[in-house]
Amino acid sequence: MYTRIISISREFGSGGRSIGRKVADRLGIPCYDNEIIEEISAQSGFSADYIREAGEYAPGGLLTSAFSHRQYGPNNADMIWNIQYKIIRNLAEKGPCVIVGRCADHILGDKECLRVFIHAGIPFRTQRIARQYGMSVADPERMLVEMDRRRASYYGFYTGKEWGCVQNYDICLDSGTLGIDGCVDIITHLYENQRT
Amino acid sequence: MYTRIISISREFGSGGRSIGRKVADRLGIPCYDNEIIEEISAQSGFSADYIREAGEYAPGGLLTSAFSHRQYGPNNADMIWNIQYKIIRNLAEKGPCVIVGRCADHILGDKECLRVFIHAGIPFRTQRIARQYGMSVADPERMLVEMDRRRASYYGFYTGKEWGCVQNYDICLDSGTLGIDGCVDIITHLYENQRT
Repeated sequence: MYTRIISISREFGSGGRSIGRKVADRLGIPCYDNEIIEEISAQSGFSADYIREAGEYAPGGLLTSAFSHRQYGPNNADMIWNIQYKIIRNLAEKGPCVIVGRCADHILGDKECLRVFIHAGIPFRTQRIARQYGMSVADPERMLVEMDRRRASYYGFYTGKEWGCVQNYDICLDSGTLGIDGCVDIITHLYENQRT
Repeated sequence: MYTRIISISREFGSGGRSIGRKVADRLGIPCYDNEIIEEISAQSGFSADYIREAGEYAPGGLLTSAFSHRQYGPNNADMIWNIQYKIIRNLAEKGPCVIVGRCADHILGDKECLRVFIHAGIPFRTQRIARQYGMSVADPERMLVEMDRRRASYYGFYTGKEWGCVQNYDICLDSGTLGIDGCVDIITHLYENQRT
């Protein structure tokens, strides 16, 4: 395979976003994460927070709207999905890049992107969440289970595939055992040594 | 993490065994596959074919015995498991090596081995099976689904974990998209660049 795009899907708290940024820095290519949300916001008129909730991202009640209110046609979540779909396809056409989350692995497919999934054991992830959010999270383990559940639901609904299932990715890495920098190193090595 | 052992679990037809042999050759360390079966045979008195059937390996009726006849104590499959367990632990103590299959990832655990899972899409695997077994296999796709089911059952029964589930492995690779040599390259690179 030869791909120009790297999509990074990740369990909550596994460091997937940090890995994406570091890989992009090392390869000298852009990393799109919040930029996609801002672009969806600009094109749709919805606020960035609202889009995060409608996506795989933040806790809140909006996600459930992806599964309802369709008797009157596409709902807000569908509208956001359609805009997101076009933005990701346009970004991929612009040139090599890393895209974190937002179902980019599915939107681009295995011909166009190196599909990476980052996961880690619960202790590693709860420690990272506790460091990142401090005392504001009462129960980090519960938070990460809930966030993964939301990502899995969103991904399953819009792609028809199972989130975090090996068959959907070219490479899956445990950031807890391999380390954040270990994962960065493997992905960078793989990208730089692709066989055409 | 720093490990001396590489365990390779694999979907049937994904080329995991070839990858194991090539990785071992490149690193200049032994690769254990059939050697384990022969050693179990020597220690247990069962034939190699019987052991293959009792393990994750070949088609046949014996596998089902792993799930039955326990009212009279451990059955043959349990006896083979116990011998296999000790052999794999002894091999790991002897020095760096690659171990293909036989639940080595579970027997050694994440502290002691780099746990690799190799998978690939059905078309890639059916082509490999057809090349390997020729006309002797009437329906390669059915064969690989059946073999994966057997491996999953065996693994699940003796480890209590789900076979092929990302959380049980440090790295999962799609040999269909990355190529056999691409997988060999990544595993070798990872092993040689481990962070202590």
